Amino acid sequence: QPPAYVHELGSLNRQQNTAHVFPPPGCRYVSKAAPQAQVEFDFSGPSMKTAVPGPRSQELTKQLGEIQNVGAINFFCNYEESRGNYLVDVDGNRMLDIYTQISSIPIGYNHPALLKLMSNPNNLSTLVNRPALGILPPENFPDKLTESLLSMSPSGMTRVQTMACGSCSNENAFKAMFIWYRNKERGHNTPSEEDLSSCMVNQAPGCPDLSILSFMGAFHGRTMGCLATTHSKAIHKLDVPSFDWPIAPFPRLQYPLEEFSRENAQEEARCLEEVEDLIVKWRQKGKPVAGIVIEPIQAEGGDNHASPDFFKSLRNIARKHGCAFHVDEVQTGGGATGKMWAHEHWGMDDPADIVSFSKKLLTGGYYHRDELQADKPYRIFNTWMGDPSKNLILAEVLNVIRRENLLEEVTRSGKALLNGLYDLQAQYPGMLSRARGQGTFCAIDICDDATRNSILLKARDKGVLLGGCGDRSIRFRPSLVFKEYHVHIFLNIFNEVLAQHK
Amino acid sequence: QPPAYVHELGSLNRQQNTAHVFPPPGCRYVSKAAPQAQVEFDFSGPSMKTAVPGPRSQELTKQLGEIQNVGAINFFCNYEESRGNYLVDVDGNRMLDIYTQISSIPIGYNHPALLKLMSNPNNLSTLVNRPALGILPPENFPDKLTESLLSMSPSGMTRVQTMACGSCSNENAFKAMFIWYRNKERGHNTPSEEDLSSCMVNQAPGCPDLSILSFMGAFHGRTMGCLATTHSKAIHKLDVPSFDWPIAPFPRLQYPLEEFSRENAQEEARCLEEVEDLIVKWRQKGKPVAGIVIEPIQAEGGDNHASPDFFKSLRNIARKHGCAFHVDEVQTGGGATGKMWAHEHWGMDDPADIVSFSKKLLTGGYYHRDELQADKPYRIFNTWMGDPSKNLILAEVLNVIRRENLLEEVTRSGKALLNGLYDLQAQYPGMLSRARGQGTFCAIDICDDATRNSILLKARDKGVLLGGCGDRSIRFRPSLVFKEYHVHIFLNIFNEVLAQHK
Repeated sequence: QPPAYVHELGSLNRQQNTAHVFPPPGCRYVSKAAPQAQVEFDFSGPSMKTAVPGPRSQELTKQLGEIQNVGAINFFCNYEESRGNYLVDVDGNRMLDIYTQISSIPIGYNHPALLKLMSNPNNLSTLVNRPALGILPPENFPDKLTESLLSMSPSGMTRVQTMACGSCSNENAFKAMFIWYRNKERGHNTPSEEDLSSCMVNQAPGCPDLSILSFMGAFHGRTMGCLATTHSKAIHKLDVPSFDWPIAPFPRLQYPLEEFSRENAQEEARCLEEVEDLIVKWRQKGKPVAGIVIEPIQAEGGDNHASPDFFKSLRNIARKHGCAFHVDEVQTGGGATGKMWAHEHWGMDDPADIVSFSKKLLTGGYYHRDELQADKPYRIFNTWMGDPSKNLILAEVLNVIRRENLLEEVTRSGKALLNGLYDLQAQYPGMLSRARGQGTFCAIDICDDATRNSILLKARDKGVLLGGCGDRSIRFRPSLVFKEYHVHIFLNIFNEVLAQHK
Repeated sequence: QPPAYVHELGSLNRQQNTAHVFPPPGCRYVSKAAPQAQVEFDFSGPSMKTAVPGPRSQELTKQLGEIQNVGAINFFCNYEESRGNYLVDVDGNRMLDIYTQISSIPIGYNHPALLKLMSNPNNLSTLVNRPALGILPPENFPDKLTESLLSMSPSGMTRVQTMACGSCSNENAFKAMFIWYRNKERGHNTPSEEDLSSCMVNQAPGCPDLSILSFMGAFHGRTMGCLATTHSKAIHKLDVPSFDWPIAPFPRLQYPLEEFSRENAQEEARCLEEVEDLIVKWRQKGKPVAGIVIEPIQAEGGDNHASPDFFKSLRNIARKHGCAFHVDEVQTGGGATGKMWAHEHWGMDDPADIVSFSKKLLTGGYYHRDELQADKPYRIFNTWMGDPSKNLILAEVLNVIRRENLLEEVTRSGKALLNGLYDLQAQYPGMLSRARGQGTFCAIDICDDATRNSILLKARDKGVLLGGCGDRSIRFRPSLVFKEYHVHIFLNIFNEVLAQHK
């Protein structure tokens, strides 16, 4: 019996008793799947009616093509009919979604708790009156921040600034580091007349030649400050002016990590040495490194991992050289690694000066240590500074995560997923390699780019939606309601696709 | 009799019959105000219970101070109780809002049409499933764009890209201009191997030394690309690295414009000459100007106007030198000048290559001419690329604007406001000067910074919320439901404040 509010949502109810179409015929993977869905509001399996994109998607793509570049459009979606782990398209195809809007759906589609929340008339005002949060916040703003973002603060941080998206979060985090660094250089926070006049025309000392150190393969966003620290694909950066900022190598580790600990430690030591060299070199160049920015797992750049020791040493190098240490958790944050923040796996009391987030957190923003707060108002500022309607949804998402122990579930499904990938890798050694992951934040490499892309399309035609990353990796980015049951649905279908490619 | 759906919103109803508290005692301005509100869901006048910020606001500011820098917080709001032109604070003060969340509330607080829209269960799915619009748009996305943004396209533009906020809109508009310019330089859109490898490490030719020409006093946002074109206040720019891009003087005109047409034409000619000089100089420096960005009225920088002739000439200079012409309508767009776009007042068929927007449009984004579309997917891209729930609200806002002829109303109220400001300026010649405006997008200068700030606070204590801009201007930014009636409420109170300052 669905809860009462579901009755109001006619369209959601209609497909509730759709017959199972899983397992698909000819399935060869020995699945341990339970015969029914474990997520209350979920479907029982994929169901494909047409090739993807189907005729309706193609028609809409043509229509949208009159308005925008549609080269990246996969297909059009029926979000009303989508549910839990399943994304339904406009041609009636229902796909197990292991990419979740580029890793940005926290607890599946149309979660009943969220539909209920948004149906509550008490929340209407939050939806129609978007405030300028930096000057005129709503009464419940401190409480909502405390309930949502602050209830999951990274270690050592009690302060948080919301922003509209991941890029804005990182841009403002960079600005906070620059401001902090310059005040440190000055020894006080009173700018000179020369600072004030030169900054108005983009010149030093007011606009100083400071830099942010980033890593090859990193992705921190696409606005011009962020883009200067992004080095994952040329298409992101081509033709856009940039800054001469230092770029260190990110460790290229061998997997499984525990089998190559000696080689990996050497590789990490090499990268750390290079980091220190670059900091010294850029200081000598007159462009001191104000901050180091790094992802706990390089995501867009190919799901590149590094060890807790690497991050500990890097944090120490930052401290030694007086640079702020910014951990970008835009993709890794929000629970997919089995902890709320991927950097919790490092086991440090004092892991970062700034932690930025977005995607699964529904609002962008960054946490920071007290010292990193801008010394004056209007330095870190914009009209909206986030959106309270997203904080509202986030607070409820966190309730669901806690109530349903979703982080434990993620750890369990993640193990099943990674073990399944190890099995498949053993079964298809010429095609698969480097299976890796933390929680369900997993990836595997395919022999080459073309095969990878072909596998992604074939999996989609069989009802599994995946994403690529790096040159030839597949990344797994399910929502937090992706259970062992769904892992096995995926593994069966993936095995079938691989068998056809063999 | 309120419409049925208002009954669901208990809190909104409660204050409906609050006794009039207007006009305030001792009022000296001879008001032509009708005795009752002309906006159905409005209050009848301001009502002040405490000084602002009141005790509850102060308590909440202290609470938020543990989490964020609160130096810019004015007070905390009760958005549930706010209505139409009136913002209610947490201490029960009700203020006539002529600043509207930094010019970002299009049709007042809690407009019944928007409450009804957000109560519709058919829209729930849009609120809880935020898509990655660039890859998996919802079925109604092309239709919603057509209904909303495209139904108000600036002249010559049929293409639009949504973004999350004003800064992101301008950052991506700049990128579109850089991409367009480099392809033009190349003569084709196939980057060389050197382009592709050098851009990965932030170096030319892949990351070319291109520039954007901007104007002193401009405000285009606070992310690092935008910030390099922002020159309104030092506090926005101090300590943040920037680009060596050309900055032209913006005309400093004398008002009323029609009385100083000869002097103003000379000033504009001087600035235009400087623009051409800078374009030539930066080309010689090896940092060619890919685009010119300008606001139709410099807002944050002090409500600086220029003539249609100035903008026509500037557009021609851009064309002559092969630069794209980007009109930033983030603050001016959305109807406050009496036209949907301020640049419509220039009377050109072909006014711009790119027009960016945000604030009153509820979603960020930019329109562009066909040639300015990036040639490949994923060049202008991010995870969310806007938010369909904002397009939904915008479509309804446009319905209201059309149904209620709000642009005509704005023109009418704007005339009353500007005439009122002229009168006051004549009455207080030592204190007020340079009254100016288009529609309700008006401003007036106060003799000095300290007096300006004191007047803003005193007006607020009497129930009128205004904003400052530039060094010593007051800017008027009411929503589009600000009627002649409200103009007279404002003028009465403002007159009283000025009289006390005399």
